[in-house]
Amino acid sequence: MTHPTPDSASATARYVGSDNQSGISPEVWAAMAEANAGHAPAYGADAWTQAAADGVRRLFDTDCEVFFVFNGTAANSLALASLCQSYHSVICAASAHVETDECGAPEFFSNGSKLLTAPSEEGKLLPETIRALATSRTDIHFPKARVVTITQATETGRVYTPGEIAAIADTCRGSGLRLHMDGARFANACAGLGCHPGDITWRAGVDVLCFGGTKNGMAVGEAVIFFDRRLAEDFDYRCKQAGQLASKMRYLAAPWIGSLRDDAWLARAGHANACAARLARQIADVPGMRLLHPVDANAVFLDMSDSAAARLRALGWQFYAFIGGGVRLMFTWDTAFATVDALAADLRRAAA
Amino acid sequence: MTHPTPDSASATARYVGSDNQSGISPEVWAAMAEANAGHAPAYGADAWTQAAADGVRRLFDTDCEVFFVFNGTAANSLALASLCQSYHSVICAASAHVETDECGAPEFFSNGSKLLTAPSEEGKLLPETIRALATSRTDIHFPKARVVTITQATETGRVYTPGEIAAIADTCRGSGLRLHMDGARFANACAGLGCHPGDITWRAGVDVLCFGGTKNGMAVGEAVIFFDRRLAEDFDYRCKQAGQLASKMRYLAAPWIGSLRDDAWLARAGHANACAARLARQIADVPGMRLLHPVDANAVFLDMSDSAAARLRALGWQFYAFIGGGVRLMFTWDTAFATVDALAADLRRAAA
Amino acid sequence: MTHPTPDSASATARYVGSDNQSGISPEVWAAMAEANAGHAPAYGADAWTQAAADGVRRLFDTDCEVFFVFNGTAANSLALASLCQSYHSVICAASAHVETDECGAPEFFSNGSKLLTAPSEEGKLLPETIRALATSRTDIHFPKARVVTITQATETGRVYTPGEIAAIADTCRGSGLRLHMDGARFANACAGLGCHPGDITWRAGVDVLCFGGTKNGMAVGEAVIFFDRRLAEDFDYRCKQAGQLASKMRYLAAPWIGSLRDDAWLARAGHANACAARLARQIADVPGMRLLHPVDANAVFLDMSDSAAARLRALGWQFYAFIGGGVRLMFTWDTAFATVDALAADLRRAAA
Amino acid sequence: MTHPTPDSASATARYVGSDNQSGISPEVWAAMAEANAGHAPAYGADAWTQAAADGVRRLFDTDCEVFFVFNGTAANSLALASLCQSYHSVICAASAHVETDECGAPEFFSNGSKLLTAPSEEGKLLPETIRALATSRTDIHFPKARVVTITQATETGRVYTPGEIAAIADTCRGSGLRLHMDGARFANACAGLGCHPGDITWRAGVDVLCFGGTKNGMAVGEAVIFFDRRLAEDFDYRCKQAGQLASKMRYLAAPWIGSLRDDAWLARAGHANACAARLARQIADVPGMRLLHPVDANAVFLDMSDSAAARLRALGWQFYAFIGGGVRLMFTWDTAFATVDALAADLRRAAA
Repeated sequence: MTHPTPDSASATARYVGSDNQSGISPEVWAAMAEANAGHAPAYGADAWTQAAADGVRRLFDTDCEVFFVFNGTAANSLALASLCQSYHSVICAASAHVETDECGAPEFFSNGSKLLTAPSEEGKLLPETIRALATSRTDIHFPKARVVTITQATETGRVYTPGEIAAIADTCRGSGLRLHMDGARFANACAGLGCHPGDITWRAGVDVLCFGGTKNGMAVGEAVIFFDRRLAEDFDYRCKQAGQLASKMRYLAAPWIGSLRDDAWLARAGHANACAARLARQIADVPGMRLLHPVDANAVFLDMSDSAAARLRALGWQFYAFIGGGVRLMFTWDTAFATVDALAADLRRAAA
Repeated sequence: MTHPTPDSASATARYVGSDNQSGISPEVWAAMAEANAGHAPAYGADAWTQAAADGVRRLFDTDCEVFFVFNGTAANSLALASLCQSYHSVICAASAHVETDECGAPEFFSNGSKLLTAPSEEGKLLPETIRALATSRTDIHFPKARVVTITQATETGRVYTPGEIAAIADTCRGSGLRLHMDGARFANACAGLGCHPGDITWRAGVDVLCFGGTKNGMAVGEAVIFFDRRLAEDFDYRCKQAGQLASKMRYLAAPWIGSLRDDAWLARAGHANACAARLARQIADVPGMRLLHPVDANAVFLDMSDSAAARLRALGWQFYAFIGGGVRLMFTWDTAFATVDALAADLRRAAA
Repeated sequence: MTHPTPDSASATARYVGSDNQSGISPEVWAAMAEANAGHAPAYGADAWTQAAADGVRRLFDTDCEVFFVFNGTAANSLALASLCQSYHSVICAASAHVETDECGAPEFFSNGSKLLTAPSEEGKLLPETIRALATSRTDIHFPKARVVTITQATETGRVYTPGEIAAIADTCRGSGLRLHMDGARFANACAGLGCHPGDITWRAGVDVLCFGGTKNGMAVGEAVIFFDRRLAEDFDYRCKQAGQLASKMRYLAAPWIGSLRDDAWLARAGHANACAARLARQIADVPGMRLLHPVDANAVFLDMSDSAAARLRALGWQFYAFIGGGVRLMFTWDTAFATVDALAADLRRAAA
Repeated sequence: MTHPTPDSASATARYVGSDNQSGISPEVWAAMAEANAGHAPAYGADAWTQAAADGVRRLFDTDCEVFFVFNGTAANSLALASLCQSYHSVICAASAHVETDECGAPEFFSNGSKLLTAPSEEGKLLPETIRALATSRTDIHFPKARVVTITQATETGRVYTPGEIAAIADTCRGSGLRLHMDGARFANACAGLGCHPGDITWRAGVDVLCFGGTKNGMAVGEAVIFFDRRLAEDFDYRCKQAGQLASKMRYLAAPWIGSLRDDAWLARAGHANACAARLARQIADVPGMRLLHPVDANAVFLDMSDSAAARLRALGWQFYAFIGGGVRLMFTWDTAFATVDALAADLRRAAA
């Protein structure tokens, strides 16, 4: 059995499309192997689930409620549904994943809550935008705004600072809104900011965080974390009814034990971020290739001609391109620096 | 790393509550390890997902549509929702898992379809019961019956014969009903019957099967199999919206490759069944302990006094008891025969 | 223009199937005509809606929240949905209208809340039954009980006394359950009991009442009344989203003004009850026709042979029969005593 | 009893906010009075419901399926829900009522179908816009487009010509989309175009029409009309479950009989349109007041300063204003020409 590891280029290293193309990290794999010993109580009554939840509480340094679910679609949708009713609405950036790439999952889980999309600065909502949207309609012919969701890091690879989040949370409190964070790449945000996880969540006023594991070395698994325990009332029933309670819960929980141990989660995310920064540096002088956004996390967005993108693809790279120009190159826990260097060289070639 | 294997008793071997208390089988683990190599396309576009689906098609010897989802709650609920609208109803046994243990998941996924419960013989529906229920109400003030769901093996450890299923399917066709099979323990049914998987599904008239993997050696994972491909239209969208599309799909698919290889799935289920049969034989002469149902699969249901059950529990066994007497003892792919023998001895002791 | 009035037999008087076969009562018609003057603000901002809600508050002698919706299906379903989440359950009698004749509406409006049916005495739930059902399952694999709904008068024409309701409410409070009353025939119950409307609702511990107007002389219209105003939070949004907000609300509200004026609602219901009592008296000695239930309200249930029922139908009467014997004869605000007498005579003839 | 009639100014005539501020027209009132005779079968089995549906079929000159529901929110939401599943999407103009003023009703009734909003020319969608939106996303991470809804007349008082609708229907057929028409002001569109109702519906390729009655003289009531009867399968169950089946259906049906008789519906709508045209003519030369849209139906949209709008309001007029300038003045079946003239004079005064 071989595990791909950073700095060892492999035949499959040419995937830079998304961090969900990567596999299971060694520490996660090892934790699953440890958990795979004999029989255990089902549905979360096992020791691994307890230990993983305790580990999350220690990490955040607060007595939060923690639930482990299968994927980000469900984590975010269940969390949002728990914060509003069907006739309420959720404020998000127009570029938010919940709006653009979940096939209507938030609407399904909530039985009809509307997403109100706002313009943003590279995926980052501003307090004034939220306030404007929350107050633009106050009649019963339009769903009442009840929740704000922000993505940390954003879909365009930016991160909110603790101060920015606190300002948003203040706005929320003043407007009767709850604050949810889609943290599919929360680890990358923490690594990028170099701050304590609590600083950009509960200390800043976030009510619920969906902490992503899949994109950072797990096979499946996200943690839904309620910092205000009262908001978590009956959330276990909600998970069960929505098909998000694993019977063999230990396999959803143990990965968190492995990932939290020795702060592996942070080191892995930091490595992915370092790859993005490395690429950005290497191609800074390539003519015709402009960074579309500052690189705060593990993604590099490049303005690039369609023909250059086609040449890059012809060189064997897998990535996402946007209509009218622009590509996303994304790095993950096991991207080798050699892969980054090869990509930089091929970008230079494609640009020529 | 150690894998629990049959015939090696362990400290945890005293769990006989459910087959979901067991771990990951060696062949499933190995397949996951093989899949855990480098990067792969996400969302099911990888080679493992293709191979696993092809494997299922070969197993059933028909060109079915196959979807891999996280758990049985979702598999059954999504399948049922795809077969009816919110104002339709689903006929099931009163003891059916979808009715008794899914926290309203079928109603949630379908946005309100009602389950119509019927009396059954040890969890097995009869054609005449189905017909009576389907025709008992035909006015618009009651949800129109559109689907029948049967559990194979049943919640009380019985199996439907191919002929029994065919008779039910005939009734369904005559009444405008679709036939769904909850196959959380489909492997145990196949092993118990010694028949081809096709004989109790598409050849007998089943429209959709939820084929369980979790209880037979996987960490997570069920396959939803549409034998009539037209019924699967847009089912991929349904899975995505409902939070049941894994981004790293290879880890949901590879276990099936491992499990199907060399018919491991059937051997594992056969072993679990053999444990049940072994126990039944050994305790046949214990006074005060009566088999509640014939043993067709991997569960033994015993009529037992509450005090005997308490004594058994005091001896360290974990199992489910039913109010007013009766316990369920369930065996799985890795139950050691020594464990069965020890249980038999303790049952005899508890009965004394 | 002619209005049917009590004691004037008409060509259509042979409908004794349901009180919803009757028309609009003169006082309701007059109120609608008064409201039909010129233009008025829409969506309930008009003077009639305010006056009708105030009238309901005066009637109940408490500062309740009042909403007018189109029909009983919606009134009950919206009220129940407001009291629970999709993963909760609602305890009701097996014979409750919400279970037997709403085509899954409660499940639809709540996105999946399960109805838990209990055996009852002629449609009346008992505290001990409620307690048993509420505590029978407390694990997350079954929807948590959160609401009890009782029908007043019941589907079999019985009424709960104030004491019986208070006992149920006590049980609810002790079990974390809310208490809802389906009052499609609330007026008949009040008339039957001769008590103040508050005595069988908020003073007895009812949280929400759906007060029926349709069956007591209105074209459409039910009032949803929250005695605890906090439970009504955002209920206006819920009504709007669910298609139950009338733009020309005055036509839903004015009928209540007409009906409440001079206690017409009570007199009309009292008349319907008197018809039922009259029939019961007149047929007490008819051989082969036995009252199935005491007559508390406006319905008479008779045990009658299928052939006798057929003869009655052949004499021109429209009514509901139940499989295996038994018919329901129901009277309404405009049933003429002469009609009752004719029916009694025909029943005697049919029995012969 | 007095009925407001055109050309007789009244104390309440200063409402020009919406056509739903008007009352019940004499012909509708008379039909309700006729229907209010004695008892009748419930739930649509009465003679009025049959006659009203037949009347609609004659009007459209085709054998369509007709359902009568309470209001436009429900009519449109139920129709859209019948045309798609929760993981599908509905293409509409950004200004469409279903998007802007239904509090998420379409999402609720469909359990999560997303509305995809498109830019439009005064509320009118163009074939190329539809095609672009329908093909912009074809992956499972975004709801599949399945329905187009157009509003006739639009929210800004424009009408689609038969040719424009046919072109849209062609696009729909080519893209696997169904075509739904929100006809809350369908009568005004017919009157404005001077065409046969079939010319802008089934002959042009519309699948389902929601034909509004409320805004054209009824108390409540919309007709959902399926031109392809197969699309109407089980729609009666859908209505029942969603709280849109009236027990005393005759009061929803009879108004249609009254309205269709002697083409009153068309004359009433034509009068409302004439009022709008009359106002537009009279104020054409008022400085600082510009028509925002051509007047095709019964609404006049004026670009007007906020201060002018305030002065108009001070003169006693009730109307809707839009932030940043612009007002909507809407006329209805009973607006007196004298009212229009008075409004024109006051507009001139307010502009000064």
